[in-house]
Amino acid sequence: MIAFFNGEYLPKEEITISPDDRGFLFADGLYEVVLCVKGKPFCLREHLKRLGKGAMQLRFSSADFMWLEEVVQELLHKNGLERADAVVYMQLTRGAAPRNHPFPSKETPLTVYVFVRPFDQAEAEAARQRGIAAITVADQRWARCDLKSIGLTANILANQQAMEAGVGEAIFMRDGILLEGSHSNFAGVKDGKLVTFPACHRILDGVTRQQTLALASSLGIEVALEPIFVNELDNYDELMVLATTMKITPVVQLDGRQIGDGTPGSVVRRLQEGFRSLELQG
Amino acid sequence: MIAFFNGEYLPKEEITISPDDRGFLFADGLYEVVLCVKGKPFCLREHLKRLGKGAMQLRFSSADFMWLEEVVQELLHKNGLERADAVVYMQLTRGAAPRNHPFPSKETPLTVYVFVRPFDQAEAEAARQRGIAAITVADQRWARCDLKSIGLTANILANQQAMEAGVGEAIFMRDGILLEGSHSNFAGVKDGKLVTFPACHRILDGVTRQQTLALASSLGIEVALEPIFVNELDNYDELMVLATTMKITPVVQLDGRQIGDGTPGSVVRRLQEGFRSLELQG
Repeated sequence: MIAFFNGEYLPKEEITISPDDRGFLFADGLYEVVLCVKGKPFCLREHLKRLGKGAMQLRFSSADFMWLEEVVQELLHKNGLERADAVVYMQLTRGAAPRNHPFPSKETPLTVYVFVRPFDQAEAEAARQRGIAAITVADQRWARCDLKSIGLTANILANQQAMEAGVGEAIFMRDGILLEGSHSNFAGVKDGKLVTFPACHRILDGVTRQQTLALASSLGIEVALEPIFVNELDNYDELMVLATTMKITPVVQLDGRQIGDGTPGSVVRRLQEGFRSLELQG
Repeated sequence: MIAFFNGEYLPKEEITISPDDRGFLFADGLYEVVLCVKGKPFCLREHLKRLGKGAMQLRFSSADFMWLEEVVQELLHKNGLERADAVVYMQLTRGAAPRNHPFPSKETPLTVYVFVRPFDQAEAEAARQRGIAAITVADQRWARCDLKSIGLTANILANQQAMEAGVGEAIFMRDGILLEGSHSNFAGVKDGKLVTFPACHRILDGVTRQQTLALASSLGIEVALEPIFVNELDNYDELMVLATTMKITPVVQLDGRQIGDGTPGSVVRRLQEGFRSLELQG
């Protein structure tokens, strides 16, 4: 596969990172994952805007990454994925400089790395149809979960725990609130309303989350931006995770406890259907 | 300089990291910094034991890194630093594997990277003599500060803030407690007692911290493992940071407020003197 690295298109196996890269030494970086449906990147601009916003908040030397739109198209082309389902991964770091905590000089070029790979949607689609089980895990992450940071140690540990428990996702819990998954947002349906935690420092304001909230409104489903308390789960008829490759996936079991009747509910079905139309529109 | 990378001794500029390295993609790694005084690594075994303990807690495929003792000696030798003041940096990651949150297969070799560089102690020594100023910053780190993780985004942001404020360190504050610095532990002197936060998930149990606590006991200075509350700072005659290259450095000003008489106090002086003897003993 051809990937993009610091201005060049190269076979991925020829790309090498400096051991001085601040991504490698300090997790001083950001990333994005974009789904391409039949070669069409979904919400690419939204992802690139968020990348820029994060770069601004971390005070990177540049905060405009809309030019990656062209890079993504070029990578799809060079890899013969113009009509394929694929995943784009983009990573940005503050560049390579001798190890020292403070930012390096403004002249240090950022590291920009992008790769694409074919993505078979069958497994994720099956999960969307039947729903997944999930577990709750203690939220041990830092206080800036709004940044899509590559500092993902807590996330990989949670995801590994889910995998070992034989379930599809781990939901981070803090102060008795189910905030979001290890690589997804989280929402529930209570009294017919779609409930999800308000965008703040505790969760990522995911692109799929934004799309789903807008979709709910357009479908006449009331949205409530409020905490989902673990001790009020009895009031929820449906639960779901929202993410780029998982899209809208029902959670039908949490910590071994059945949600609703244990099958995907009517609200999540309406949202899934609406989401498919959104994708077709691009 | 010659560095060590995955079993080989190579010129540092020839070392390259895979873009699939989990250190680069997920901050899935640990590090250690060791000071060599006139070519003698100080407390190297303690650092290597901690590296092993961290690797065990993160469930790396190996948790014994005592063999790095020989690598460090070899690097000092190959770089002509056998009698020099130098710093050793060691980094360990879960290795390179196609990007996926869960751990890769047990067969994936860990990434092991070690470099040494000469270290001029003059600046740090001057800071130890006159003391430094520091600022407090909100502790935005994750809940596993006991792990010496390469996920240092919050640390670099805090350290950068200190640098821009023209001071020597940023002290993380959580719940009104001064926990530790962006790359140091933190302690104070109250009623003649050395006070520092108990080792737990909120701080790193630093090697210099351990040495200093043992030293205090041997000097007849009482040790209290308890919180230093920001609203009780008036009760403190002295403050200090503890770290590998900073050793025991007095903090004579915090957030613009003078500590004691604004010069290093008598307890920190006794500890510094005792620490010099420890170093001479190796």
